[in-house]
Amino acid sequence: MNPRLFSFVGGSAGPWRVTRIDTIVGEPLPAVTNVTVVPDVSPTADASWTLRGITSNERYVTRDEKTDLVARQEGLGRAASMCAALIPIRKSPEWWGLPQDERRRIFEDQSTHVKTGLKFLPAIARRLHHCRDLGPDEPFDFLTWFEYAPADSAAFDDLVALLRGTPEWRYVTREIDVRLVRDEA
Amino acid sequence: MNPRLFSFVGGSAGPWRVTRIDTIVGEPLPAVTNVTVVPDVSPTADASWTLRGITSNERYVTRDEKTDLVARQEGLGRAASMCAALIPIRKSPEWWGLPQDERRRIFEDQSTHVKTGLKFLPAIARRLHHCRDLGPDEPFDFLTWFEYAPADSAAFDDLVALLRGTPEWRYVTREIDVRLVRDEA
Repeated sequence: MNPRLFSFVGGSAGPWRVTRIDTIVGEPLPAVTNVTVVPDVSPTADASWTLRGITSNERYVTRDEKTDLVARQEGLGRAASMCAALIPIRKSPEWWGLPQDERRRIFEDQSTHVKTGLKFLPAIARRLHHCRDLGPDEPFDFLTWFEYAPADSAAFDDLVALLRGTPEWRYVTREIDVRLVRDEA
Repeated sequence: MNPRLFSFVGGSAGPWRVTRIDTIVGEPLPAVTNVTVVPDVSPTADASWTLRGITSNERYVTRDEKTDLVARQEGLGRAASMCAALIPIRKSPEWWGLPQDERRRIFEDQSTHVKTGLKFLPAIARRLHHCRDLGPDEPFDFLTWFEYAPADSAAFDDLVALLRGTPEWRYVTREIDVRLVRDEA
């Protein structure tokens, strides 16, 4: 069975070196120099913060969209993926109070979230983790982890800029953008 | 803020007395004589089992359906609601692997889950709790708690029988039906 629960540990040691932490909106995260991604919830010495998330079923994606995504996406851990980003996001109570059809309409009809992501495949690999239903007190609703080659760094900047300009992002009340590099494959 | 996390504690004491536990499909739960519903996760002496679930956003319901539901439903804790049921359910990996549009089609177009529930409002009050994303090892995906007057017991039997006959229920791999009564309002 594939593990579903992951912890993202910010501290002063670990394989991914922080190059930048930008607070896009809301309360910042404490500055750290390194991030480690571990399966499950391992107690870690030297953690300034630990964010937990769980992979889950699709919330919005249709069969046709899923077919396109699966055909074009590549997995994490590629040798060329020396860059990564961790983007924790929280959405407003207003978003969570919307019924499914209205959230889907904002997510894709108005914001083309899937169509935009598809344009950056397979260069930008990604794994989405859900936090909101892990418990009642999670600081974020989602943690997305991205991996890409250094040559695709500008493309990654384009991707996040496109998403941040969409109607969906009006519901984002907290967003941190952590950029990382690793030194060896 | 409303609490979102609830524990359902099966043991030998508590306000809700078990009248029947039926294993509909899959592994049974140990027999208990009483169930207590508590907010959050309180460690409880004398628990044979504790099931946890969290209320969350709508997964399938549209704006029109939500409007109908909100107009007709009543809350838990009504003085006349001397009967309750706790129905923990688990669905198959096949269900969770389906994209959103196909799950919605099975849930409502084929199984009229919302339309059927509406017919029993306001008599049958309900609260749905999600477990699947609380962690990777939860025994159930959902816990639904129902409350109704003794005179509506036959209607409640009709409701669960209708749902169990639907295409959606082909994906249910574990279901326990716990019926309860309380002695005073």
